[in-house]
Amino acid sequence: MGATKLSLQFDRRPFRLEIRTLSTFIPYESGQAQELELIRMDDRLERQLDFIRELDRLKSVRRQTWLMDASRKENSAEHSWHIAVMAMVLGEYAPGDGVDVGRVLQMLLVHDIVEIDAGDTFCYDEVAASGQHAREQAAARRLFGLLPADIGDRFTTLWEEFEARQTPEARLANALDRLQPVLNNYHSQGKSWQENGITHDRVVARNRVMDEGAPVLWRYVEALLERAVAQGILPPSAI
Amino acid sequence: MGATKLSLQFDRRPFRLEIRTLSTFIPYESGQAQELELIRMDDRLERQLDFIRELDRLKSVRRQTWLMDASRKENSAEHSWHIAVMAMVLGEYAPGDGVDVGRVLQMLLVHDIVEIDAGDTFCYDEVAASGQHAREQAAARRLFGLLPADIGDRFTTLWEEFEARQTPEARLANALDRLQPVLNNYHSQGKSWQENGITHDRVVARNRVMDEGAPVLWRYVEALLERAVAQGILPPSAI
Repeated sequence: MGATKLSLQFDRRPFRLEIRTLSTFIPYESGQAQELELIRMDDRLERQLDFIRELDRLKSVRRQTWLMDASRKENSAEHSWHIAVMAMVLGEYAPGDGVDVGRVLQMLLVHDIVEIDAGDTFCYDEVAASGQHAREQAAARRLFGLLPADIGDRFTTLWEEFEARQTPEARLANALDRLQPVLNNYHSQGKSWQENGITHDRVVARNRVMDEGAPVLWRYVEALLERAVAQGILPPSAI
Repeated sequence: MGATKLSLQFDRRPFRLEIRTLSTFIPYESGQAQELELIRMDDRLERQLDFIRELDRLKSVRRQTWLMDASRKENSAEHSWHIAVMAMVLGEYAPGDGVDVGRVLQMLLVHDIVEIDAGDTFCYDEVAASGQHAREQAAARRLFGLLPADIGDRFTTLWEEFEARQTPEARLANALDRLQPVLNNYHSQGKSWQENGITHDRVVARNRVMDEGAPVLWRYVEALLERAVAQGILPPSAI
């Protein structure tokens, strides 16, 4: 029988037990209950790593937004990184007494993970949007369910907080999630707006919610969108 | 003269002033000092957005690591996202009394930004590594220098803390930065190891530092690397 290595935690302190033969193991812990407990603890790390392996697939979920240099469309993993750093830079624009930027970061890092199963829903696609909520709920159950329950619950709570947009942190997070594609669309010469036939009024209607989470940034976007129309890269509102 | 919109902050509370003509502006604030102050505040948001625009380029910095499905090599932006979520899942494996996971997240989100100028240095390329430090120092000065000084200093401090590897947070962050490519290399059937002629001993030597920041995870990696050799996807150590 080969050596079995177990990664354990007791009182939140990790240590390792190496079981070289069954006979050196059983005398040490003596009993079925402990043995099962050890197996459960080892299972914890395996579950964490299974989830981390699954995360890699978000790098292949393509969004409608182009990189600013228009070389390719971006994916949801790099988008999530971009807006998390944006929170570190723009956190001061939350209204009122400020927000817990650490919580905003965690929400933004987690907010698109459901797309691994549910795919990215283009925000102007009303047909796709109709089934989006149910698809994402199922995705959250499966994906966060891969994790040990305490961590899975934490991720689910963060995702639900982001979606509900009720806390100042969630409102800022949502504002940044809208700001970034506007910036990318503007700097890539409106490529995604044009190829999808999106007009100024629809961009304004879609992004006005930014005003809740970061009013200064929303007013910046309002001005930017007017400039985009003047420059001919965003089609004017349909009459 | 067209309308000029300024985004302002006083006492950390943002508000907006719209200047429709010069004459409606001067009576309102009356004086050169206030006018300059207003210009400086507007400049703050522009500098923040210039930096955010620059960040987009990290999505085009290609690493040597393949995605787990071996469809393409990954870039430094999506890698940064992956390890930040890993910190949210694996933070408990830091030794001792635990770490400030929020700070680990911030370090991981920032740690590769210098590659926008300096490029990704393949960790087994000793020739490239020789000039790496100077290149990255210059990159940090230019890139973090785009930001308002208070934020630029914060980013520089985080990056230096990560690089110095002296705090528990920096040690955990470095451990995760090593763990992720090992997992990706393993799950992509050792593609990057093989195409670069990297043997087991070099992977161990490169990653042993993980033991400082997350000993349980390092022992997991030790076992995984042995399995990779047994499976023929990691060339055995040169004799």
